[in-house]
Amino acid sequence: MSTDHSTAILTMTTEKLSREESLKGIFHQHRDGNPLPSAKALQEIIELSRSILFPGYYGMSSVNIKTIKYHIGVNVERLHKLLADQIMAGLCFADECSEETYEKLNVRRCESEQLATQIIEKLPVIRATLATDVEAAYCGDPAAESVGEIISCYPVIKALTNYRIAHELTVLGVPLIPRMMTEMAHSETGIDIHPGAQIGHHFTIDHGTGVVIGATCIIGNNVKLYQGVTLGAKSFPLDENGNPIKGIARHPIIEDNVVVYSNATILGRITIGHDCVVGANIWVTEDMEPETKKYKKA
Amino acid sequence: MSTDHSTAILTMTTEKLSREESLKGIFHQHRDGNPLPSAKALQEIIELSRSILFPGYYGMSSVNIKTIKYHIGVNVERLHKLLADQIMAGLCFADECSEETYEKLNVRRCESEQLATQIIEKLPVIRATLATDVEAAYCGDPAAESVGEIISCYPVIKALTNYRIAHELTVLGVPLIPRMMTEMAHSETGIDIHPGAQIGHHFTIDHGTGVVIGATCIIGNNVKLYQGVTLGAKSFPLDENGNPIKGIARHPIIEDNVVVYSNATILGRITIGHDCVVGANIWVTEDMEPETKKYKKA
Amino acid sequence: MSTDHSTAILTMTTEKLSREESLKGIFHQHRDGNPLPSAKALQEIIELSRSILFPGYYGMSSVNIKTIKYHIGVNVERLHKLLADQIMAGLCFADECSEETYEKLNVRRCESEQLATQIIEKLPVIRATLATDVEAAYCGDPAAESVGEIISCYPVIKALTNYRIAHELTVLGVPLIPRMMTEMAHSETGIDIHPGAQIGHHFTIDHGTGVVIGATCIIGNNVKLYQGVTLGAKSFPLDENGNPIKGIARHPIIEDNVVVYSNATILGRITIGHDCVVGANIWVTEDMEPETKKYKKA
Amino acid sequence: MSTDHSTAILTMTTEKLSREESLKGIFHQHRDGNPLPSAKALQEIIELSRSILFPGYYGMSSVNIKTIKYHIGVNVERLHKLLADQIMAGLCFADECSEETYEKLNVRRCESEQLATQIIEKLPVIRATLATDVEAAYCGDPAAESVGEIISCYPVIKALTNYRIAHELTVLGVPLIPRMMTEMAHSETGIDIHPGAQIGHHFTIDHGTGVVIGATCIIGNNVKLYQGVTLGAKSFPLDENGNPIKGIARHPIIEDNVVVYSNATILGRITIGHDCVVGANIWVTEDMEPETKKYKKA
Amino acid sequence: MSTDHSTAILTMTTEKLSREESLKGIFHQHRDGNPLPSAKALQEIIELSRSILFPGYYGMSSVNIKTIKYHIGVNVERLHKLLADQIMAGLCFADECSEETYEKLNVRRCESEQLATQIIEKLPVIRATLATDVEAAYCGDPAAESVGEIISCYPVIKALTNYRIAHELTVLGVPLIPRMMTEMAHSETGIDIHPGAQIGHHFTIDHGTGVVIGATCIIGNNVKLYQGVTLGAKSFPLDENGNPIKGIARHPIIEDNVVVYSNATILGRITIGHDCVVGANIWVTEDMEPETKKYKKA
Amino acid sequence: MSTDHSTAILTMTTEKLSREESLKGIFHQHRDGNPLPSAKALQEIIELSRSILFPGYYGMSSVNIKTIKYHIGVNVERLHKLLADQIMAGLCFADECSEETYEKLNVRRCESEQLATQIIEKLPVIRATLATDVEAAYCGDPAAESVGEIISCYPVIKALTNYRIAHELTVLGVPLIPRMMTEMAHSETGIDIHPGAQIGHHFTIDHGTGVVIGATCIIGNNVKLYQGVTLGAKSFPLDENGNPIKGIARHPIIEDNVVVYSNATILGRITIGHDCVVGANIWVTEDMEPETKKYKKA
Repeated sequence: MSTDHSTAILTMTTEKLSREESLKGIFHQHRDGNPLPSAKALQEIIELSRSILFPGYYGMSSVNIKTIKYHIGVNVERLHKLLADQIMAGLCFADECSEETYEKLNVRRCESEQLATQIIEKLPVIRATLATDVEAAYCGDPAAESVGEIISCYPVIKALTNYRIAHELTVLGVPLIPRMMTEMAHSETGIDIHPGAQIGHHFTIDHGTGVVIGATCIIGNNVKLYQGVTLGAKSFPLDENGNPIKGIARHPIIEDNVVVYSNATILGRITIGHDCVVGANIWVTEDMEPETKKYKKA
Repeated sequence: MSTDHSTAILTMTTEKLSREESLKGIFHQHRDGNPLPSAKALQEIIELSRSILFPGYYGMSSVNIKTIKYHIGVNVERLHKLLADQIMAGLCFADECSEETYEKLNVRRCESEQLATQIIEKLPVIRATLATDVEAAYCGDPAAESVGEIISCYPVIKALTNYRIAHELTVLGVPLIPRMMTEMAHSETGIDIHPGAQIGHHFTIDHGTGVVIGATCIIGNNVKLYQGVTLGAKSFPLDENGNPIKGIARHPIIEDNVVVYSNATILGRITIGHDCVVGANIWVTEDMEPETKKYKKA
Repeated sequence: MSTDHSTAILTMTTEKLSREESLKGIFHQHRDGNPLPSAKALQEIIELSRSILFPGYYGMSSVNIKTIKYHIGVNVERLHKLLADQIMAGLCFADECSEETYEKLNVRRCESEQLATQIIEKLPVIRATLATDVEAAYCGDPAAESVGEIISCYPVIKALTNYRIAHELTVLGVPLIPRMMTEMAHSETGIDIHPGAQIGHHFTIDHGTGVVIGATCIIGNNVKLYQGVTLGAKSFPLDENGNPIKGIARHPIIEDNVVVYSNATILGRITIGHDCVVGANIWVTEDMEPETKKYKKA
Repeated sequence: MSTDHSTAILTMTTEKLSREESLKGIFHQHRDGNPLPSAKALQEIIELSRSILFPGYYGMSSVNIKTIKYHIGVNVERLHKLLADQIMAGLCFADECSEETYEKLNVRRCESEQLATQIIEKLPVIRATLATDVEAAYCGDPAAESVGEIISCYPVIKALTNYRIAHELTVLGVPLIPRMMTEMAHSETGIDIHPGAQIGHHFTIDHGTGVVIGATCIIGNNVKLYQGVTLGAKSFPLDENGNPIKGIARHPIIEDNVVVYSNATILGRITIGHDCVVGANIWVTEDMEPETKKYKKA
Repeated sequence: MSTDHSTAILTMTTEKLSREESLKGIFHQHRDGNPLPSAKALQEIIELSRSILFPGYYGMSSVNIKTIKYHIGVNVERLHKLLADQIMAGLCFADECSEETYEKLNVRRCESEQLATQIIEKLPVIRATLATDVEAAYCGDPAAESVGEIISCYPVIKALTNYRIAHELTVLGVPLIPRMMTEMAHSETGIDIHPGAQIGHHFTIDHGTGVVIGATCIIGNNVKLYQGVTLGAKSFPLDENGNPIKGIARHPIIEDNVVVYSNATILGRITIGHDCVVGANIWVTEDMEPETKKYKKA
Repeated sequence: MSTDHSTAILTMTTEKLSREESLKGIFHQHRDGNPLPSAKALQEIIELSRSILFPGYYGMSSVNIKTIKYHIGVNVERLHKLLADQIMAGLCFADECSEETYEKLNVRRCESEQLATQIIEKLPVIRATLATDVEAAYCGDPAAESVGEIISCYPVIKALTNYRIAHELTVLGVPLIPRMMTEMAHSETGIDIHPGAQIGHHFTIDHGTGVVIGATCIIGNNVKLYQGVTLGAKSFPLDENGNPIKGIARHPIIEDNVVVYSNATILGRITIGHDCVVGANIWVTEDMEPETKKYKKA
């Protein structure tokens, strides 16, 4: 009898959880055939991208210069297909209009494939930039024994690979997908970079856990951060309804050759001038002149 | 010959590692048929719960309002079975008595199924509360472009989903399982919430990495934390054997509408009054009056 | 036509990504049959090690004292094979010479198997040390309800299991593999321990997210850290080319019975004397006498 | 040097195998996005169909009358999606025209979904017919201990489930897919039924290995075959090019209540009248009057 | 609109397929927690059994005489658990009584575990008998190049391994499971042996496809069959309801040292005396004296 | 207590099954690092080969003439590695000498890689021959609607793909592996072709279940068989120990353009002259003159 009772509760709960009022605000009804972006597909996109950008280190452990083209060719083709599908899912997700026609779907499908092609086309440049990031990490860490160790192990390389692809997607106007990609890196490395941020070459982060880089940050070249650094917003204006106004520049500008030590917090649309040094555990809410240093008094 | 030598060392080491004295303190002998809680099963429990609570966003990327009931029904039934098994494993783990009889096992099996049913029954309320958390995250972040982005990407929602289910299990007296669930979220998000903590509605955490919320915390409604915030214990009394005394209230009370900025540390059984603001990187070990603000001197 | 256009771009990009100049610095050409270390194989090594060291808690949820030897025997044999392969991959990775002969490969294969055997032989001692770490975690946390909860849930145990094996590999001179193992724990727990660090028994870390322990740290017995603690380098000398000089002792020495509270930062080759207490959020760059305490002024 | 030689041969062979002339006759160039039917998807279609038609016996081993609807609902929805995709793939495969437009693809996509819906709609009738086949197998075999044994074990039920679905697809004009489905049953059971054959209710085959039922066979109700029976074509007329003329009725008509014993061969468009018995190992190429028997002379 | 129409049909069909009248005869309602036997679990049982009986050839390709005990120990323990579960499922399936109590379930659980233990205990004898079958296959086939080839490749060894375990289960009175196991071998090899048949040592079947051995066959030692041989029933008496009477001996007795060539059909409860030879493609329905031969007239 | 009893039996049985005398004849002790051929690896070899030989039909359902080279290149490289490993395993298996040195292993490793390269080099010719088999199947079956249907569905193509590769391995002297490959096709299709047989181009088998083609068969061009045909040995001479003498030609020679109808049995080293027709269910043990026909009298 108790199991009958239990079954009754399960079916009643199923009913409750399926009612439209219960689903309000946590359920986005989709048109048939237009699924939401898939975390699983994005995971495969990340793995393929790493495998293409750093062959031998990710995805295929035995590579030969004579046959590498086959592997990259297969991976590029697969990546294109997966990206086109997920970009399509992102575009459908963001689009509010409910009357979907086949014509509109076709237009969007074409657009998604073209966007995916544009991302693929940027991979050689992305790889070149990531190579500078690898170099910066190697030169900046006495514990690193080889460039290969940086590529294989260092969380910053994983986080930047996701970020640099996600940023290009953001520039192209693709919604949702870029954020999902950088949050995957956040979960994996503890480094939270918003895909909207702009970051120059030879960028590195040591250790990385707890680093936050906000959506409107602008970071120059040869910048180095340590673990726990926050580049955040100080406060944000609300509109007449009390909601935060979106799209306002509210995060710091970090110029070239800046170093920010662990757990420092830099807040607001301020500028940290080139060649500055920001000490550990300190709190900065005002501009710093170029080539100045700010340390905590112990 | 070297491989014979190697095999000899492997078998000898196997012997050593299997001796009772070597196993002492790190091995809990179980009665046959009563396995320990399984991380793999708990992982599936988390995925099913997310899929039921946020249909379309987790677990099934193409959902239709007309057929959603089938999906939720199947998932609820599976969740019930998995929960009952793991609750049973948790109860057996905690129970010290060694003379197990079939009668006792049956009693515990019934109890486990009833507890699993009670958790299922609470899912609609848990979903309603999580919907307020989603709303709080959306309203509090100018970078968020849609509610769907919050549900899909934001670590706080993953951490709170695990916590809110784990907390209900704790309230029902289920041992071990709730801690395993919140530690899974800790690993995924860097947010460490003890399942014993009490947390109101419209709760949110921005970025999240490094946040710690202790076992006896009490948090009101509309509270917002930033990354790196610790709500911890200052010290704890020891018993005559030098062991910490369990069960004493030792973590802060945070009243309604409080904001705590990044890396702030609040320690001990103090009260942060309603509508307080606690600035970044600061250290609070004494009560704060309602509607007061405390900032670091830069 | 657009798809033809797209295919043309994909093939052209494949060509670009396969050119030797594009691969420079991010690709390490390997001799045939000598793949790079594999993250997947290392993952299995970690899981097997946890399963052998904490039987019942990891890998096999139903264990019986009479048959445990079979399970450990099978796992030890598998672990030996996987370790030998990965050590071989690590040795080949680090070796710069390009003219590889079968004789040299055989010598290295023998060496790898012997190194793997030496690691296996140390497992009983590693387990004994980890048992003290479990004990320390249990005694130091009033929220812990059982030793089993510590082993099942606490991130510190996962991080230390990886570290203690990785450290032995480092001591034996195996390159790359140990770093990959501790970075896996870093990703899982937010605790970043360099395998070169030396750590005594009864060591524990509460919560753990954001902890960094540098490569030349020396940590005594009965030491306890809280989340966000950095044991780092203050600065490091550069050689004439501006590269950091490797191998210099540059991280703190922490003597026995020290406690370091959350988000404290200890930098440079200084000594924190035995029985010291370092308060939360503070910054230490000079030696501390034994039995002294240093707190932040609130 | 030898491995360089080996790599040269691999790349040269890859070139040869990729040339258009080498691909002639064994490669069907497809338009982008229109993959061939997939054996893996068809395997899932078969498993879902069995799970829907015989709940509890296939696919979900624990079923409850109160919750069965959820399971069937989920499976029906998934089956519909998979069927629509595979029908689409079949239609594209059969279509010779090479200039594909999005409009034509949309038309075909709609058509595929409607055809999939029509198959779903027939499932209750297919189940009812299969229930008569189960009954016939049970009544005809003294070794069968229960109806459940028939459904769980007997190859005839697996072969007929595939056939009865494939036959409906054939009736609807879907190309290729039905043949792939019956060949899957052929591989699994050794029973080769062409989906074009027409078969009445209460049909059974004992043991089954080696049975062949040709494309234009017509089989009545209550017919029973034994292992190794061929219902084949005697010969077939060729056209002026020497190719066999397709579509001519060339296989036997077997009327109601006929029994054909093991390894009998019945060839050509002949009629075996109702209530006939055809003995083992014999060879029949001419009509048999109703209610006659034909045995081998031992 | 068409997709709404489609959804309506899917939900309506789901309703129809879930109605009790539609489920009649093809659905066996089970008590909660008592699932049907699982084909997947039985597949693992088969693989484990082969791995235990022929170590090195199945399941673990690298075996060492010093460590083989660990592998067999782990596999035996796992096999015992799986067998106990499936025997329990078989017993519940066969049992008609609907009022299940926990007490009865416990009794059956005990019984299942004891039956599983009995099967395990018989494995050494089963292995010894299978070794004679391997020997017979090797001696009887000039194409066999080694005993290892027989064990690795010959379908008869796969079919006999399943049969010999299934037969022991049948002798112990376990329902359903044995038939599922021999049908798995039937699907894999085309050899259909009923688990009720009795078969002596040194038995072999060449090629095997299409062989049928009925439930009441008795086969002596040193018997050899070729492909397509049927050892079947001639006819079977019906009871007053027209159903076949179960349990009557109706298949042949084949004495020691008999050879039956390909596609021969031997029907009914007749005796083929020791040292007989039955020629290919012939039909035997009467006793054969010992040491006689029967060939087809070409 | 009963479970203790059960554990005791399990451990005792493990002991028995691990004793050397119990392992005699069914266990082939191997040197470390030289595993037996693996059915799983061979399965992947088969799938890769089909995917390379019939691109689009197997393994990759969406192929593009411009990117096909990447796919074939990756698959050819992987196939080479797998083949080399399995050939090595086959050579080690067949080799009786027990004193293995690293030098001998290296020689064998080189040899295996060269043999694998030779097989790869033959793939274009194997594909050309299989294309004639596809053509023969299409022209000979009025039920076939397209060449693609033949490649996708017809068991004969699967069986011949395995056979034609296995035959080349046999010609190169590789032991065991070829037999394992043709037995895999036997299990999948019911067609049993010994890899030693020689078969010309444009060969086809209709339906196929039960066909047996012996090791010393020689089959010309344009030959067609139907299901159940045996091309076997009549008897075989024994040596002085009563064992069959290996390597004697004992199966039929079938010349060009012969058709053999279903279930015919042709035994012994006889010659069926070109353009003969052999009727269904008949038995042939003597030569047939060219252009003769032999039918059964009905």
